[in-house]
Parts: sequence; structure tokens; C-alpha cells
Amino acid sequence: MSKIKIIVAGPRGRMGLEAVKMIDREDTFELAGCIDRKNDGLLIKDIDGLPNLDAPIYTDAEVCLQELQADVLVDLTTPEFAYTHTKLALENGVRPVVGTTGYTKEQLEELRELAEEKQLGAVIAPNFAVGAVLMMQFSKWAAKHFPDVEIIEKHHDQKLDAPSGTAAKTAELIQEVRPSHQQGHPDEKETIEGARGADVDGIKIHSMRLPGLVAHQEVVFGGLGQTLTIKHDSHHRESFMSGVKLAAEEVMKLDVLVYGLEHLLE
Amino acid sequence: MSKIKIIVAGPRGRMGLEAVKMIDREDTFELAGCIDRKNDGLLIKDIDGLPNLDAPIYTDAEVCLQELQADVLVDLTTPEFAYTHTKLALENGVRPVVGTTGYTKEQLEELRELAEEKQLGAVIAPNFAVGAVLMMQFSKWAAKHFPDVEIIEKHHDQKLDAPSGTAAKTAELIQEVRPSHQQGHPDEKETIEGARGADVDGIKIHSMRLPGLVAHQEVVFGGLGQTLTIKHDSHHRESFMSGVKLAAEEVMKLDVLVYGLEHLLE
Amino acid sequence: MSKIKIIVAGPRGRMGLEAVKMIDREDTFELAGCIDRKNDGLLIKDIDGLPNLDAPIYTDAEVCLQELQADVLVDLTTPEFAYTHTKLALENGVRPVVGTTGYTKEQLEELRELAEEKQLGAVIAPNFAVGAVLMMQFSKWAAKHFPDVEIIEKHHDQKLDAPSGTAAKTAELIQEVRPSHQQGHPDEKETIEGARGADVDGIKIHSMRLPGLVAHQEVVFGGLGQTLTIKHDSHHRESFMSGVKLAAEEVMKLDVLVYGLEHLLE
Amino acid sequence: MSKIKIIVAGPRGRMGLEAVKMIDREDTFELAGCIDRKNDGLLIKDIDGLPNLDAPIYTDAEVCLQELQADVLVDLTTPEFAYTHTKLALENGVRPVVGTTGYTKEQLEELRELAEEKQLGAVIAPNFAVGAVLMMQFSKWAAKHFPDVEIIEKHHDQKLDAPSGTAAKTAELIQEVRPSHQQGHPDEKETIEGARGADVDGIKIHSMRLPGLVAHQEVVFGGLGQTLTIKHDSHHRESFMSGVKLAAEEVMKLDVLVYGLEHLLE
Repeated sequence: MSKIKIIVAGPRGRMGLEAVKMIDREDTFELAGCIDRKNDGLLIKDIDGLPNLDAPIYTDAEVCLQELQADVLVDLTTPEFAYTHTKLALENGVRPVVGTTGYTKEQLEELRELAEEKQLGAVIAPNFAVGAVLMMQFSKWAAKHFPDVEIIEKHHDQKLDAPSGTAAKTAELIQEVRPSHQQGHPDEKETIEGARGADVDGIKIHSMRLPGLVAHQEVVFGGLGQTLTIKHDSHHRESFMSGVKLAAEEVMKLDVLVYGLEHLLE
Repeated sequence: MSKIKIIVAGPRGRMGLEAVKMIDREDTFELAGCIDRKNDGLLIKDIDGLPNLDAPIYTDAEVCLQELQADVLVDLTTPEFAYTHTKLALENGVRPVVGTTGYTKEQLEELRELAEEKQLGAVIAPNFAVGAVLMMQFSKWAAKHFPDVEIIEKHHDQKLDAPSGTAAKTAELIQEVRPSHQQGHPDEKETIEGARGADVDGIKIHSMRLPGLVAHQEVVFGGLGQTLTIKHDSHHRESFMSGVKLAAEEVMKLDVLVYGLEHLLE
Repeated sequence: MSKIKIIVAGPRGRMGLEAVKMIDREDTFELAGCIDRKNDGLLIKDIDGLPNLDAPIYTDAEVCLQELQADVLVDLTTPEFAYTHTKLALENGVRPVVGTTGYTKEQLEELRELAEEKQLGAVIAPNFAVGAVLMMQFSKWAAKHFPDVEIIEKHHDQKLDAPSGTAAKTAELIQEVRPSHQQGHPDEKETIEGARGADVDGIKIHSMRLPGLVAHQEVVFGGLGQTLTIKHDSHHRESFMSGVKLAAEEVMKLDVLVYGLEHLLE
Repeated sequence: MSKIKIIVAGPRGRMGLEAVKMIDREDTFELAGCIDRKNDGLLIKDIDGLPNLDAPIYTDAEVCLQELQADVLVDLTTPEFAYTHTKLALENGVRPVVGTTGYTKEQLEELRELAEEKQLGAVIAPNFAVGAVLMMQFSKWAAKHFPDVEIIEKHHDQKLDAPSGTAAKTAELIQEVRPSHQQGHPDEKETIEGARGADVDGIKIHSMRLPGLVAHQEVVFGGLGQTLTIKHDSHHRESFMSGVKLAAEEVMKLDVLVYGLEHLLE
């Protein structure tokens, strides 16, 4: 079986670098080249901190896509670059695998139509951590049978926002399947404000921030005499690469655009 | 909507008693009567330790099923009684909900045919704890994407067997979906025998036994930079009643025999 | 060795009943009698729901203490009764073991002097759960070396107040040993109010309330590259009895009043 | 207050490098120089991968110790080098802080006498992770009141030995304070061999090995109706540096040799 040839956009970014390393590690993948804002004409191995690979760097995405005849574009850059790259990829017969939360509905619709027209697979996902995506899917399922649920997410103390995006997304998915209701005792009282956490449609979210933590979340469901807990612990951004790898494999079998890693995990 | 009329077999048993209490608690259920090895002709409220209910007690299961015109039989007794009761129920137009692991393939097949012939729903389940069944289903799903997994189950120190039935069953379900492989480092060594736990096709199971524990299990999946954990904690046998309740509701909509609570949880 | 003779006040209360059972279970203890608001002249075995014991019941505490010549009074009733009982016990040569948080400083001082005068041991403790008291002591110790800490306490959803008394007490003990400081990123923001929990001098407390939970607390300390967690799970009020047992044994060796179980745990 | 001047032995080793970084980060410390097997005469900043510091490198430990007039030697190399370095340090008026498990009793005794003779502080510790050392101390304390205990340690699947050294050491410390006894039900049976884990004097140890784990340990104590758990999670070797920092500060106040970080944590 011939290897899947992959272009990575943003090889010097934190996620892009992990993608380059992952592709280098996998026997079934081959790094065709990279799209970078600078370093045009250099090779990956010429850049300090990047692996010792001969793949060429382009600053012009279109030229890159046309010249390299790759199978897949992995784009983990910012929404505005990613959008342009995704379009260019589809127009040039390259299947995009894109990690972003920033597309508008209109952009998504446009890309979906373009993929269909070209009969090319495409994967766009807000989250590539397979474990986190499964946690959310399991939570959605469990909530049908255990309507009482709270979330505790724990992150390092450099994180600015609380609750985390994953916790908010999890609560949103749970909301879709359970009837809205207040939890806890109707007469419960906070003797110190904030004790019961943030409230999303009755679902409580608690955010812990401490040095020594990385990225963790527990979704706890309570029922008569029992609790069911789904927990994800991530301690390195390489945890995202299992999802990127899966998407790069699966996108080759698709001829439509798929939004959300969960559709590849069934 | 009229209430679902339920007969409970074995109302003085630990699980049977919980079932009687649950039926009493639920507005949509009504206790029609009970099948007991003794106390024929008495009422539930006549028996020490049972709730204050007027439901009649029968020692003859067939008479009970024929006279009471109930909708459902809940049977949480022993396999041999349960088998006879299940057959009698189906023959008399009553839908059975049975908790047992003890039926042979032949018995199951016979009951399946009988249910089909009578076009009556029937639910037979080895485990009615919704949380535990979901834990197993999630584990089976997760194992497709995280083939490395270990189980730790924790029980009170009066438990005789290790590992627990639920842990063994979980490993069996995981085996079905992941390629068999040895886990851990190929050269790993136990400096004290048993440290790495029980081995089921490469899946390690660890059994903790301590006073103060009740019934707990964690299934831990490991992947690059992340772990995903599914945990069930049960501290009272009333945790089984959510599954019995669900089955008694769902069996009314069925016209075939369903084996395993998981089929009602999708 | 002769047995320690114990009087229990409030044998029909939830904690008093556990104390009666514990004394019955232990070979080194003997139930001398009980103080109850009613049932004067009856025996314990005459009361529905109490163990089959011949110990006599008194409504008059003074008569009880004078007639029975017991060694220890175990009092798990309300603060006002307990105060009177404690005084009477010391005056009549009986060592009190009292579980209460309700004494004023003046009352405590008075009882301390009385115990000294009589040269009698006495143990008064707001919390008899050995595990919870150790958790608090360990937390106080750990906070010296890990000044960043958050508490998550989890209870059944019938609990009215949040945070729990144990969580508040734990934070108070930690405050004594660590310099007050704000935790988390100085610029952190709650996008949903309450996410970061209750704040006690910079220590965050999160309160989870779900059916299926009983009484649980985790104290999480974070440092460079590591976390240290101290966790207590209690699922039955019999967990308090290990502390009552210890206190009833230790009070026999004391000739002063000791406030707080922690002083018996070193 | 003048800074504490520190020499680091082995600056290119994994732990040595972390020590160099920590000293660079701390305002109260100053890197005086390094002892390395090569690179004599170069500066730290000349070496690829080391911080941009002007501290000189020596291959001759004695010359280094004599010329630099440092306060403290931090040695995280191998036992045999460390032993020579520790002796040389003491002989040259420099206080050693050494992380090693490899000294013989005789060597320790000799160094203890040398420190006393020179009236110089010295700290030798098998483990500098403050969290892990506290976990062990708390466990030793808890075991006095909860004699039933099991340990579960979880590590990445590249670890060769099971159980871990920390787990074995924890069991050893617990053994010192609790009466030896068999745990679990006297008639318990392993239906699959190894389920109940490794046995150290009745204490069970379970070793989990999975990708995505780093270094974790839980010590679980069980009593009537409750469990108490002490858990340490480490995800980076910088977790050791809090202990090295503490030792480098405390050794300045000592005039004897201290073995074990726990003596500095009280």
C-alpha cells in the first residue's frame, strides 16, 4: 500500500509541529511538504527545532498544493488561514483535515458544497483529542438515563477562562438530550457564594486551577445508589495527534465533508 | 394513562424487597401481588419488614398469574425458579422482567420462541444496574480507539471471588472489539508476583478488597498523552432498581424477548 | 481486663443507635445503660428497632449517672442536652465522650476546669470520623509545602448548605499555616459566574450535589509538575464510630479534657 | 541577603539540567559552576540545550570545589560519582545535597561522621519529590488508625519493574507501624491468578502500565463505612525540584547530615 502524502500548514506552530512529528513517526504517512508564512524554498530540516526531514516549505499555499500532488492537507493554524487553505485544497484535489472552531455556518456550508462537487473527503473538527470527544459522546448517552449531572474540569493555573470550552461544550451536548431541570435540593443555600459552581441549564460546572495540573475533566452522573463518572486526563498536546491521524486515514475513504471527529468514532 | 400492574416474585429476598419498594414509590406502577414460597393468602403488609401494601401473596405461581391479570412479572429470584416463572408468565399473557445469569442457551432459545409465538415482550438481563451496563457499553466503544486498557475493581472485603463478574464481563466485551495483544513493556518484570494483576487476553484486571468499600470499578484506557477513564460506584442495591424500572416500562412496548439491558439503553 | 462500662445518651437517635450497636459489637465495652427523654424504666430490648440488650433506660440523667457506676458517658445528642450531661458526668465521676460543635468558649473553659479539678478525662470533638479528621490534619501539613490548594466536596442532593462544614473547617485549618494569597491566574475570568467556586482567603471550594453520592471530599494540592490529593469517602454514619470507640478507650487514660479528635490520633 | 551559591554535578543529565534551570529561576540561588565529565573550561551557555548562563564547567571535582567557594553542591548523578563528590564537598567546606538510593550503610556512616566533624549540613535523599514523600509520611500515619490498606501505582508502559520503588517503599513504611495481618476475606479466591496483586506482608500492591500515564500512586485505607485515599500524580521531573530547592535552603541551617527529605518536611 502506498503511503498517504500529507502537507502540513503551520509546521512551526505548537500543534503543527506535533503533526509533523506524528507523520514522521507513522509508517503509512509521508510528509510531502509544508505551508509556512516564511522560509519559502527551505527544507523542514533547515529550520531550528524541526525534525530532520527533506520536505520542502512553501509560503504560497496554492503553489504548494498544485506542485506536491499530496493526498491530504493537515491544517491546525488559525480560522482565517485555515478557511483559505481548505478551499484551495478542495479546488486542487487535496483532502483537508482541519482543526478549528472558528468557521461560520456560511463558510461551512460553502465548503460542504465544494467537497460534494469535487467528491472529495474533508474533515473539520473543533477537537481532535479522541479521548475528549469520546467523553462528550458518552456523556450525551449517559444523560439520557442519568439526568442529574455535574462537571468538574481541572487545568493549570495559567488558563484564563473558566469554565473551559470542553466543559461548556459537554454541558451543551447534555442539554440536547435531557429535560431542563434544576438540580440539588430546591432549598439549598450557598453560605459562601460560588460554592455550587457555574450553572448551565441546571448542570453545574466547577473549574479548578492549580499548578501541577494539565488538562482534566470529570463528568459525574448521579442516580439512585450509584454514580457513573467519565474522566479524561490529558498531559501533552500529542494527545490531539491520535485524532489527526485517524482523520487523515478516514478522509481518504470519504467523498463528503464531515464536521466533528465524533462521526469518525462510531 | 392506566398504571402498569406488576407481580413480584420473591418479595422477601433482598432484591425482591427493593423491587416492591420501587413499585410502591413510582406513580406509574402498581403492585398487583407477589409470588412467595410461603405466606399464601396473606397480604404484603402482614409480613414483618415489608411495606404497608394490600397486595396479596400466592405460593402457587400459576394461580397468581392467572388470577391477577397483571401486565408484568418482575422476577429476581434464583435461576431455577425464574425459569419456571418466566415460562408460566408468557403462557399466561404476562410480560416477564427477569434478572439472572443462569439460563442455558437452550432455555433462552425456548423462551425466545415462546415470546415470539405469544407476541409478548420479555426482558432477561444478567445486570440491572444501568450505570454498570453503560460502563460496559462505553468500554466496548472506547476500546476500538484505545486498545490499551486495564481494569481496577474495588469491593468490600467480604467478597470471595476476584476478579468480580462485572470486571470479567467488561474484559470479555473489550476482547470482542480489540485485536488481542500483550500490554506493558515486552521486558517488564514483576519483582513481586501478582503486581501486574490478572491477565485476560492481555487486559490486566486488579482487584482491591477493603472494609469501607462497597462496589466500584474503573476502566482505564491509555493513549498518546492521555487517558480516558470510565468509573462506576455503587453503594446500595437500590442502584439495580433503575434498570428494573426501565425494563418494566420498555417491556410493555416490546413483542419479542430481549436479552441484556444494553438493548434498552441505546 | 475488665470491660469499660458505657452509658449512651440518646439511644434512639441516628448516631446514638450506631453507638449502642458499636458497644454491643466490641468485646472490651459493655453498655451499662441509656439516658433517653422517654421510656424510663424500660430496657433497651423493649424498644422497637434497638438491639436485644438488657441495659436499663433512665429519663433522669443524674440518677442514671449515680446509680450505674459507669466509666464513660457517650453523648451524641444536641448541644444543650450534651452540655448538661457532660457537667453531670464529671460531677459524678464519669468520663464524658461528646460529639458536638455547639459549645461556647465559656462552656468549654468551665468543663475543662471541672475535668481538671476532678482529675477526670473528657473528650469533646466536633467530628468523630477518623478519616475526615486525618484528612484535615494531613491537609494542614501539606499546605506548608504546597500553598496552592482547592477543595471539592461531594454530597447527596438532600444536603441544604454549600460548602459543607468539613470543607469550611479544612480551609480554615489550611489558612492557619499558609500565607494568604490569590490563586489562579491574576487575569482569570469567569465566563459563567460561579465556575471558580467559593473563595475562602484564596482557597477555592467546589460543592457537588447529586443523587447517588453520600459524603466525599477531595483536597487537591498543586505544585510544579505534581499534585497531591487527600480524599475521604464516607458512605455510612457507622464511619463515625471508629472515632467514638477510640475516644472511649483513650478517655480512660486521660485526666484532662481534650478538645478535638486529632489530639488522640498522633 | 546574599544568594546561596550552588555547584551542580552532571548538568547535562536529565535531573541535573532541571536543577540548573531551577537555580536560574530562583532569585535566592546562584549557579556558581558545574562538574561535568567533559567540557572542562567551557561555560554552561556554550553547551547545546543548556541555559544561557556564564557558570564555568570543571571536569575535576576537587578543583571545582576549591576554586568556586560555593555554599552547596547539588549532586543528582549516579551513586558512585555522588559518593566521591559528597566526600570532597564536605572536606572542602561545601554542603552537599544528594539524590541517591545507592549508598551503603558504611558509606552513610562515614559521611555522617565527616559532616559532624566539619560541622557542616548535608542532605541525602532517595526521593526529592515533596508530594511523594508527604504521601509516604501520611500513609505511615494513617496506617496506625486504618490497618487495612492497598496501593495502586500507575505508570507509563515503558517502565520495566512492577511494583514501583515508591510503592514498595510505602508498603515498607506502613509495615513498621501496623501489626502484620492478612487482608481480604480469609476464604477469598483468585479465579484468575494475580487479580489480588502483589503481597507485601498482607498489603496488596497493584501496578497499572498504560501509554498516557506518567507516574501516579494511590494509597487506599479502608475502615468501617469509610475510605481514606492519599494520591500523588507527577507528570514532569521538575516535580523533584521543589525538594531540591527546599534541601538547598535547609542544608544551610544544618550542621549534621540528614538522610531523607521527610526530616525537612515536618
